[in-house]
Amino acid sequence: MSKGVTKQSEDYAKWYTDVVLKGELADYGPVKGTMIIRPYGYAIWESIREAADKMFKETGHVNAYFPMFIPESFMTKEAEHVEGFAPECAVVTHGGGKKLEEPLYVRPTSETIIWSAYKKWINSYRDLPILINQWANVVRWEMRTRLFLRTTEFLWQEGHTAHASAAEAEEETRKMIEVYRKLAEEHLAIPVYVGQKTDAEKFAGAVHTYCIEAMMGDKRALQAGTSHYLGQNFAKAFDVKFLNKNNELEYVYATSWGVSTRLVGGLVMAHGDDKGLILPPKVAPYQVVIIPIYKKEEDRSAILEKLSQIASDLESKNIRVKIDDNTQQSPGWKFNQYEMQGVPVRMEMGPKDLEKGHVVIVRRDTGKKEFLQTDAITNTLVELMPVMQKDLFDRALAFREAHTKTVNNYSEFKEMIDEGNFVKAYWAGDDRHEEEIQKETKATVRVIPFEQPQAKGTCFYTGKPADKIAIFGKSY
Amino acid sequence: MSKGVTKQSEDYAKWYTDVVLKGELADYGPVKGTMIIRPYGYAIWESIREAADKMFKETGHVNAYFPMFIPESFMTKEAEHVEGFAPECAVVTHGGGKKLEEPLYVRPTSETIIWSAYKKWINSYRDLPILINQWANVVRWEMRTRLFLRTTEFLWQEGHTAHASAAEAEEETRKMIEVYRKLAEEHLAIPVYVGQKTDAEKFAGAVHTYCIEAMMGDKRALQAGTSHYLGQNFAKAFDVKFLNKNNELEYVYATSWGVSTRLVGGLVMAHGDDKGLILPPKVAPYQVVIIPIYKKEEDRSAILEKLSQIASDLESKNIRVKIDDNTQQSPGWKFNQYEMQGVPVRMEMGPKDLEKGHVVIVRRDTGKKEFLQTDAITNTLVELMPVMQKDLFDRALAFREAHTKTVNNYSEFKEMIDEGNFVKAYWAGDDRHEEEIQKETKATVRVIPFEQPQAKGTCFYTGKPADKIAIFGKSY
Repeated sequence: MSKGVTKQSEDYAKWYTDVVLKGELADYGPVKGTMIIRPYGYAIWESIREAADKMFKETGHVNAYFPMFIPESFMTKEAEHVEGFAPECAVVTHGGGKKLEEPLYVRPTSETIIWSAYKKWINSYRDLPILINQWANVVRWEMRTRLFLRTTEFLWQEGHTAHASAAEAEEETRKMIEVYRKLAEEHLAIPVYVGQKTDAEKFAGAVHTYCIEAMMGDKRALQAGTSHYLGQNFAKAFDVKFLNKNNELEYVYATSWGVSTRLVGGLVMAHGDDKGLILPPKVAPYQVVIIPIYKKEEDRSAILEKLSQIASDLESKNIRVKIDDNTQQSPGWKFNQYEMQGVPVRMEMGPKDLEKGHVVIVRRDTGKKEFLQTDAITNTLVELMPVMQKDLFDRALAFREAHTKTVNNYSEFKEMIDEGNFVKAYWAGDDRHEEEIQKETKATVRVIPFEQPQAKGTCFYTGKPADKIAIFGKSY
Repeated sequence: MSKGVTKQSEDYAKWYTDVVLKGELADYGPVKGTMIIRPYGYAIWESIREAADKMFKETGHVNAYFPMFIPESFMTKEAEHVEGFAPECAVVTHGGGKKLEEPLYVRPTSETIIWSAYKKWINSYRDLPILINQWANVVRWEMRTRLFLRTTEFLWQEGHTAHASAAEAEEETRKMIEVYRKLAEEHLAIPVYVGQKTDAEKFAGAVHTYCIEAMMGDKRALQAGTSHYLGQNFAKAFDVKFLNKNNELEYVYATSWGVSTRLVGGLVMAHGDDKGLILPPKVAPYQVVIIPIYKKEEDRSAILEKLSQIASDLESKNIRVKIDDNTQQSPGWKFNQYEMQGVPVRMEMGPKDLEKGHVVIVRRDTGKKEFLQTDAITNTLVELMPVMQKDLFDRALAFREAHTKTVNNYSEFKEMIDEGNFVKAYWAGDDRHEEEIQKETKATVRVIPFEQPQAKGTCFYTGKPADKIAIFGKSY
């Protein structure tokens, strides 16, 4: 390993890549744009996955698995969908040593294959709703890739639900974006704006798309999760009708929603600093790393015995602990490595500490160091975990608030965007206006928040009366 | 849904497909040989996955994720491996609308891509062992497919470990086949023979392969899990050397091991009967299904109130419960459906039962019906679960023992195989003899068990002195 990471202020993109590679979250795969998720990064993904899966099940969803190969003819059934996705697909043309009669697309998302199955399973309103989620890998052939943020293959979940009414499907769409808000804010400690995408930014095949949008440490926006109301688009494309309660045939209403391994990248950029990653306790593979410090062999066994006791006491309170007694590396090297990997709390104990009956505790987020009497360790750390979780959220929120600027006209807008801020402004523009603004400033409407001011206003760009404010920013 | 399944005695293969389709475990995908794992089948897989993952972590393994696209040049590096796998691969030739410079193989297994990464990660004995597992989908282009047992795409886990010595790698190989034995016997209640494959049946690229082998309800053998000692084969193919403690460069030693969604098929065939699936309690998505029986609306609320109490009491003891109050189907229809789906225990309550303060309990495995006073329900069912788990294992074991025949000569062998039994016999043949036997009888050596008799014997086929007995059978 290495002596640290590039400073954020020096080169944020390089800082990010350094943290991901040197923190052993991920590595490059042999095929351009692919990624190996290493055990430490995968453990973070497992924690996200577990938290999300629990919430999905609590809201009545079940998991299933659909094949990843989609016949070419399926892809072309929904016009907007094929236009949006077909160009970025990987295509299987040979199988079992022979050329296939019909090429197969590796799923970029699974609406088409899932709706072809729903056609078989849905006949009547009694078969509805279907509330299915799938954990899977998907492939999108990207030109410019970045570890976790945009890779050719990535891991995600995709919910695909079928409903007997537009209202019920809309309710589901909203329910799931709220699940994502909780996942981001309460599990990852990342504050998000929640709302609707403009037509320019919605999912290819959706009626409308809701999203959660987060600010990263370089003040750029990350789309962290989306929930789509698909109306009857896919039901029409795959001819999925149901007999409603009035005994009439009607097309089924649909939603889909997903979050991906991109969230791991978001976690790095929302909380990290010049020393590396900072992990919220809920998502940290280990919350406390314990490092014994000794020179003589006789000290080693006494210290390790005490530390093992402390560790099992902590584990009995569901705190995840790692004792690093590897003798190949110095304590200093370990301090750096675990700081880079963002372990919330470091605990040290040397011969003098043992003698005095205390340990040294260092918080990763604040760097604050304190001595703790050994009998106070467990209670103190049990209480510290939710405090650190909240502190990280509050810090990220304060950062976002400080860099979200309200503007009244386009010249203010350009100035604030230039400085790298989010901009919050009354907006009544359309796709064309959005495109003009993007061309000139690289900023787009990230989200039109659900939460809106009471008062109406004037659009900063078109000067028209505006109902709503929008959040603009440069995005990943 | 439908009125039941084909009888086993009538057509076992059709019985199997009926159970899988009508029990809603899986459905056919649109591409030939692919499968949709439906929620009920996926919940069984989740239970297997969870149990296995826990054991992997307890034995020191961590999860990671490697890309599914393997450059063609990687596949060709290990001679036996490419010969075994390349012909059954799906090949991506186009990505992002362009023809690729090098075709990509969709992983049939991940040794090659993982060892290309290990080359980057391993320099010294200090970097060893690496104990990584991956949960993933893989693709093998099969000619003859069957739901769960052999599908073009399937889900599995694949462990890939790297070690500094042959002895350590061999120990790992044995450790993991023992983990699989426990998974099969203790979680799925499927008794297995544990031992070594002959060279004819080992993994393409392995030095030797260990396996667990189970008997299905039609007396055919199912290979249910394998653990491979790979020696230095892949290290040599990918030039992965480490500096050992004597400061010499040496090739790394490897293992790989896996189980797949095939286990779900094994579960169906190990325990099922003419009514459908029978699930061991540990793996059942719900262990108790509760069905209220009433005609009048006034009875409904009283019965449901009581049943909800019972259900939450059971859930507080970690019993998984489903109350089915769907009014679209009759109780009789539900009885059949849950019997087909193998739910361990059915509970019924009608107005008279409520009055008398009891419920009716029916065990799926024995069909035994009894009345239980409501205050005895929870304790009785908590105690019943491990009993049913053990009974299912014992029943499957007795079935296997009754159909494993010892023979002394080839004519007895043919007779016993003809009757559909496993044969246990002293064996000193080689690949060629095995092929001859297979040609004539369709039986192969399923496994040479670790557990061997003390005495030596005479090979039933070659007449040579033999050290070991082998288990023969016709296999899936």
